[in-house]
Amino acid sequence: MAYRSPVADIRFILDKVVPLAPVAATERFAEATGDTVEAVLLEAGKLCDEVMAPLLRAGDLHPAKLENGVMRTSPGFKDAYAQIAEGHWVAVAASHEFGGMGLPQTLCVAINDMMSGANLALQLKPLLTQGQIEALEHHASDTLKALYLPKLISGEWSGTMNLTEPQAGSDVGALRSKAEPLGDGTYAITGQKIFISWGDSDMVENVCHLVLARLPDAVPGTKGISLFMVPKFLPDAAGNPGTANSLKVVSLEHKMGLHGSPTCVMSFEGATGWLVGEPGKGMAAMFTMMNNARLAVGVQGIGVAEGAYQKALAYAQERVQFAPIIEHADVRRMLAEMRADIFAARSIALACAVALDMGRATGEADWHARAALLTPIAKAYGTDVGIHVADQGIQVHGGMGFVEETGAAQYLRDVRVTAIYEGTNGIQAMDLVGRKMMDDGRAAFRLLQEVEDAAKAARETLPDLAEAVWQAAETMREATEGLIAQGTQDRFAGAVPYLRAFARVLGAHYHLKAALADEVRAKLAAVYIRRILPQTEADLASVRAGAVDLYALSPEDLGA
Amino acid sequence: MAYRSPVADIRFILDKVVPLAPVAATERFAEATGDTVEAVLLEAGKLCDEVMAPLLRAGDLHPAKLENGVMRTSPGFKDAYAQIAEGHWVAVAASHEFGGMGLPQTLCVAINDMMSGANLALQLKPLLTQGQIEALEHHASDTLKALYLPKLISGEWSGTMNLTEPQAGSDVGALRSKAEPLGDGTYAITGQKIFISWGDSDMVENVCHLVLARLPDAVPGTKGISLFMVPKFLPDAAGNPGTANSLKVVSLEHKMGLHGSPTCVMSFEGATGWLVGEPGKGMAAMFTMMNNARLAVGVQGIGVAEGAYQKALAYAQERVQFAPIIEHADVRRMLAEMRADIFAARSIALACAVALDMGRATGEADWHARAALLTPIAKAYGTDVGIHVADQGIQVHGGMGFVEETGAAQYLRDVRVTAIYEGTNGIQAMDLVGRKMMDDGRAAFRLLQEVEDAAKAARETLPDLAEAVWQAAETMREATEGLIAQGTQDRFAGAVPYLRAFARVLGAHYHLKAALADEVRAKLAAVYIRRILPQTEADLASVRAGAVDLYALSPEDLGA
Repeated sequence: MAYRSPVADIRFILDKVVPLAPVAATERFAEATGDTVEAVLLEAGKLCDEVMAPLLRAGDLHPAKLENGVMRTSPGFKDAYAQIAEGHWVAVAASHEFGGMGLPQTLCVAINDMMSGANLALQLKPLLTQGQIEALEHHASDTLKALYLPKLISGEWSGTMNLTEPQAGSDVGALRSKAEPLGDGTYAITGQKIFISWGDSDMVENVCHLVLARLPDAVPGTKGISLFMVPKFLPDAAGNPGTANSLKVVSLEHKMGLHGSPTCVMSFEGATGWLVGEPGKGMAAMFTMMNNARLAVGVQGIGVAEGAYQKALAYAQERVQFAPIIEHADVRRMLAEMRADIFAARSIALACAVALDMGRATGEADWHARAALLTPIAKAYGTDVGIHVADQGIQVHGGMGFVEETGAAQYLRDVRVTAIYEGTNGIQAMDLVGRKMMDDGRAAFRLLQEVEDAAKAARETLPDLAEAVWQAAETMREATEGLIAQGTQDRFAGAVPYLRAFARVLGAHYHLKAALADEVRAKLAAVYIRRILPQTEADLASVRAGAVDLYALSPEDLGA
Repeated sequence: MAYRSPVADIRFILDKVVPLAPVAATERFAEATGDTVEAVLLEAGKLCDEVMAPLLRAGDLHPAKLENGVMRTSPGFKDAYAQIAEGHWVAVAASHEFGGMGLPQTLCVAINDMMSGANLALQLKPLLTQGQIEALEHHASDTLKALYLPKLISGEWSGTMNLTEPQAGSDVGALRSKAEPLGDGTYAITGQKIFISWGDSDMVENVCHLVLARLPDAVPGTKGISLFMVPKFLPDAAGNPGTANSLKVVSLEHKMGLHGSPTCVMSFEGATGWLVGEPGKGMAAMFTMMNNARLAVGVQGIGVAEGAYQKALAYAQERVQFAPIIEHADVRRMLAEMRADIFAARSIALACAVALDMGRATGEADWHARAALLTPIAKAYGTDVGIHVADQGIQVHGGMGFVEETGAAQYLRDVRVTAIYEGTNGIQAMDLVGRKMMDDGRAAFRLLQEVEDAAKAARETLPDLAEAVWQAAETMREATEGLIAQGTQDRFAGAVPYLRAFARVLGAHYHLKAALADEVRAKLAAVYIRRILPQTEADLASVRAGAVDLYALSPEDLGA
């Protein structure tokens, strides 16, 4: 069974659940008419189904490899990437000024969802470029913009982000890479970076590395970090790739999955770089890139879940044990819950994207706050759902799920990293209960109020479901009040279950909206609200427990 | 950090939580004194730590392979297996008559737990032989017993079980392999079997296949299935391996994990076989083997969870991001929950083993019923915990968890199959809510009563924890009454969440017993009872929902 991009599901959500209409009603995104949205999704979906998806297994079986300093990518990837670039799919949300389509971020998110379901390893390459484009749009000088953006947007060049060093993972501030000013406006960048996705490839003429490093007089920690553009080939006077820069891929990681995407150890050895943004403001600039990437990674989880679900659904229809196994109650349960989870996570991600677009188009603080609140939720829940659905996809396949030829296992191996990179899901949850509650929960309470209001309004039509959602939102509101009263350590101890509970309440909210619009959706909503939403209470029990019992256990008590 | 067998944890459980003392007090198991138990566990633990564990990664990197018809096993496996056999570890529970140690099954389970944590792929080989020994002890003729049991028990020969065919997985009754009587008391076995673990190896002189097949006049379905012993080499007059039988390994599966264990497609081409047990009673005989194997597979999950946990704990102590990451609340939470889950699953498995031993030693129906009830719970919960803990082990490692060199990912890839083989966890749950409730829940209610009584008795000492456990058991009792009133389809729809809820109530019960015995254990019990037990209610909501909402969704509604 071939992968089919979920165009209809996405259109339904953008029509009835998280309407795109208000975005299209703004001056900035006036081009995003219904017709344009439909055409863009259908065309992108075709590329996903016909070009990217058929290469999924080739990427797994034939990982990118380093041969005499050249990164040979998986069979078919180079040609497929060329088609992505030719179709202008690298940067649909980039501004017109340098050749982008200027479409809402929401459409970019929808396309990334479809592409992730088709081929996660390949999709990661344009995705990284998108993040770099956004960082340059916001922080680079006009000279750098003019030089790099057209090439990145066209897909001729690609982008990477270089944060992590062996000792500096979640603690980015511990990084040691150095940038020495050379007096001519450039810097000599020296250091080693790890976990650099798509650090090189044979698919583009130049690879543009955004590298975090320290200037000689930098203060310790994150405030001493600056951002540099360090291209593989230095652009010549005409802006074409010229002299090779002093940087290289040292080695590739052997990973559990995502084999088609080379994960590089990079060495910068006095490489020439250009400052992006202000000295010491590198983290702020990188956060622009990472915020984009966090939502995008959540969407990767959702896309993979979709691919895994479609494969499991097809298998459940064709595999006969007594009857087609889709007729067995437990298999039916797994499939229904998988589909309901995907709908919830996708709606949350698109709601986050709509909030981003509304924030950009209107400048209103409430939209910015909404997007900021939803970003860690979209990232962590999307990837949790990706992992859970891929795991259940294996289970639906029975013994065949453990055999690699089937393809079910690859989804789990590929998607597993999404709960880790761009900030682990634990870090996302800490962001939610920490930074995102610094408004005393204002953005959270406003969103929960909307959930309660919508549930109240649905009481006439769908009394049972509406009541359950209202109750869950009310419980979540109380839990949020309790969380805000907690100290930092207690908050952090409950961060992951708090995020998960919030996501489920939102998922139920969007399911309820869908149920009001469509009878079939109402059946799926019932599954989510009756079977998945109740887990909220268990998660909130863990939130209320705080940290005391955890720290009562010493490392020795834990067996160390 | 090297793997250390959890001898102390197992001894604590057998001492304070699920006492082995009543088993040792029976005539049959009088040898199982405290000193013997300690000596056996320490010695087996040493083998696990020093011989098996160091080969874990070699098995993953260098899978067994078929070379010119010879199965070449992973580096070091042959020598390690020889040490397992020499130490008499293949069959500690086999009867003295043919060279076994005659120890309780409980000790066998404990050793399998430790071996699984050390090296799951290698452990699977003696495990399969154990199952075969038990089937032969119960069902084979004296001639077959005398010929095969000494060789199997000594480990010179090994055993496999051949059930699955391409069209016959969970529906074993659909199998088509044939057995033609040859008139001399032997049969010609013809057919293809798939997913045969350790179908061949270079580690033993003979491989003994127990094969399910149909006699010419057999009725359709499971009642027409008979069991045959089909050795790779036909024993000669002296009982040594003679002529090669007409069977072969056709190919090996490429699996997500467990690479060190060859998973074979077997072809029997008129191979000579001997009937084991009565014609048409093959399933009953095979169930003896499978019942043993189901508990053993649950224990595989627990063992792998232990290995994954130890690795994550060590990493969390040495990895510094701001502070050693074990000091971060979310990492502490993950580790504490992992350890609490392992304790719960291990206690359930050992309780099942003790019930098995008590049933054998006393012949009492209540013990048999207890063991029968606990077997599917031990299998499914043990493997669920294995998968969840291995997954969380990756998460604790952050980016390093996705890199294969670390070893965290292998645990998840290896353990994933345990929720599938020996009957998927869905099948286990259907067994629990179907066959195991045919006594109108008598065995279940009796166990829940014990949980409630123990909770009541603990109220003085640990009021909060005891109250939570009592309440959960009471809720579980009501849910069980509700379940019994449901029709089959509704029961099956809620089977998996019902099993999970039952397991958590039992896990909490054993944690409470541990808490009464030891202050450190009480801290871990608090984590389980406050953070994990509350999930019971969510699972029971799903049980109460029945099947209606699931079947309201047609395949088309599900996206087909």
